[in-house]
Amino acid sequence: MPVVISIVGKSDSGKTTLLEKLLPEIRKRGYRVGTIKHHAHGFDLDHEGKDSWRHKRAGSQAVALSSPAGFALIKDLEQELTIDEIVENCLADMDIVLTEGYKKEGKPKIEIFRKDGPHKDILCKDDKTLIAMVTDMEMRIPVPCFGLEDTVQLADFLEKRYLRDK
Amino acid sequence: MPVVISIVGKSDSGKTTLLEKLLPEIRKRGYRVGTIKHHAHGFDLDHEGKDSWRHKRAGSQAVALSSPAGFALIKDLEQELTIDEIVENCLADMDIVLTEGYKKEGKPKIEIFRKDGPHKDILCKDDKTLIAMVTDMEMRIPVPCFGLEDTVQLADFLEKRYLRDK
Repeated sequence: MPVVISIVGKSDSGKTTLLEKLLPEIRKRGYRVGTIKHHAHGFDLDHEGKDSWRHKRAGSQAVALSSPAGFALIKDLEQELTIDEIVENCLADMDIVLTEGYKKEGKPKIEIFRKDGPHKDILCKDDKTLIAMVTDMEMRIPVPCFGLEDTVQLADFLEKRYLRDK
Repeated sequence: MPVVISIVGKSDSGKTTLLEKLLPEIRKRGYRVGTIKHHAHGFDLDHEGKDSWRHKRAGSQAVALSSPAGFALIKDLEQELTIDEIVENCLADMDIVLTEGYKKEGKPKIEIFRKDGPHKDILCKDDKTLIAMVTDMEMRIPVPCFGLEDTVQLADFLEKRYLRDK
């Protein structure tokens, strides 16, 4: 099964931007990588008029789209899936899965914290699952700290610690 | 595992429209129903600027979105999935799965054929997996024929033949 690492941080701290930098660094090293984005309040993926939208609107509880090069699924749920359920069912063929969010699940976490961001306190100060910080501040914290642009070093750290046996 | 029925017909024969009528009829009877749309040449579900699109563009080979009420997945593939693989992995909790397309897979098929449609010949004339026709023409064919608006009767037929033990 893939290694799972969560990228956490308060809202607007730059999680998606960090992922955008980190993903190509990991791909470049030859690993298969997937992502899970956590939405606390739902998401809107489908678009009016498309066949998938027409299926959904007519009452399909799970719409799958399948082509020779790709697959997609939009499914209603009564209960939220855990990271492990998603990984086992849909991402088991990856080497590494990066989640955006999921601060409450117990996966190893990288927190992003910017000094000009909208929040004053870091999220994972006393969280034992914190494995690294990405920040533009000086911090006294017992995990490695990487600068906002230190993407190569962060990928090195993840590769060395989690991916060498993949 | 759910019953799988394929809605087939040449392009622009009205497959999506038939599904839009049939889905609420099946839901109304209390069954859980999912759909699979077959795209011979790929599909475009994701939209520029969304976080899922940003993950994908940055190199994520499988992007999952998860919320308390729903789940979505967009995944690159090297080889097309079969209907059975999709059903087993993603739709096993449904009572019935209707596919739009998949004329070459061996699932029971309902063909839609309209006399003012863009094609002259029916698709499944000698196909042993054909279980019904939906058409506005008179036809001499050894399976039940339903009119374009006979959705209740078609749902009755499917329920009686395939869903009674669900």
